[in-house]
Amino acid sequence: MTKGEKFNKKFNVSKTVYDGFVEIFNDKNPLHVDELFAQSKGFKSVVMHGNILGGFLSYFIGECLPLKNVIIHSQEIKYLKPIYLNQLVSFIAEVADVYESVNVVEFKFYFEDDFSKKLAKGKIQIGII
Amino acid sequence: MTKGEKFNKKFNVSKTVYDGFVEIFNDKNPLHVDELFAQSKGFKSVVMHGNILGGFLSYFIGECLPLKNVIIHSQEIKYLKPIYLNQLVSFIAEVADVYESVNVVEFKFYFEDDFSKKLAKGKIQIGII
Repeated sequence: MTKGEKFNKKFNVSKTVYDGFVEIFNDKNPLHVDELFAQSKGFKSVVMHGNILGGFLSYFIGECLPLKNVIIHSQEIKYLKPIYLNQLVSFIAEVADVYESVNVVEFKFYFEDDFSKKLAKGKIQIGII
Repeated sequence: MTKGEKFNKKFNVSKTVYDGFVEIFNDKNPLHVDELFAQSKGFKSVVMHGNILGGFLSYFIGECLPLKNVIIHSQEIKYLKPIYLNQLVSFIAEVADVYESVNVVEFKFYFEDDFSKKLAKGKIQIGII
């Protein structure tokens, strides 16, 4: 991987993903499960859990890189806009830095919607193991 | 919530959580699913996905706070030690700052094992909505 290299992937926040996340982690906060509550707070519907994007990041690092011998060292994410059920999100990552002497690669990434509005952005640092 | 207030919660990285995470997000990187590969890299067994901790953070913010009208603004995590299947992890969070004028609360947190060794640490900023 070299600095500037880009990766793209589409993810769907499907009902399977949403239901599965709720079942596994049991976060039934009303913002995520109560339509009227979410609307009373100005959202058009229940808001998907931000940490669902973490699952997509896991897939990206684990499955979409040219190397399999990788491990996440650290990760940060800022949530910019709500994501709703069945929304397709585009994930775009770029190699921000490569520290060859310590086998570390840093990515910056963002998720955007169909109108190129940024939904979330952040950084991930991985180690080559 | 006031600065310095602490929260504790135990989580189990159970087979249900691990299998569910793999099924939903499809990250079958060999580090996570191939015992011999993980051992060849110096780990005692397959390493749990770091983003499973993100699901626990989701539960903490959504379900364990005195308020339900909350949303995550941003989150960062550093992974310090591998976590293995069926490991019990203790989650400890502390209110790091409260910005009342903008309804924002920041937590610092860590996960530790039974020997008080830190497994991961980070920060979460939430908004009161």
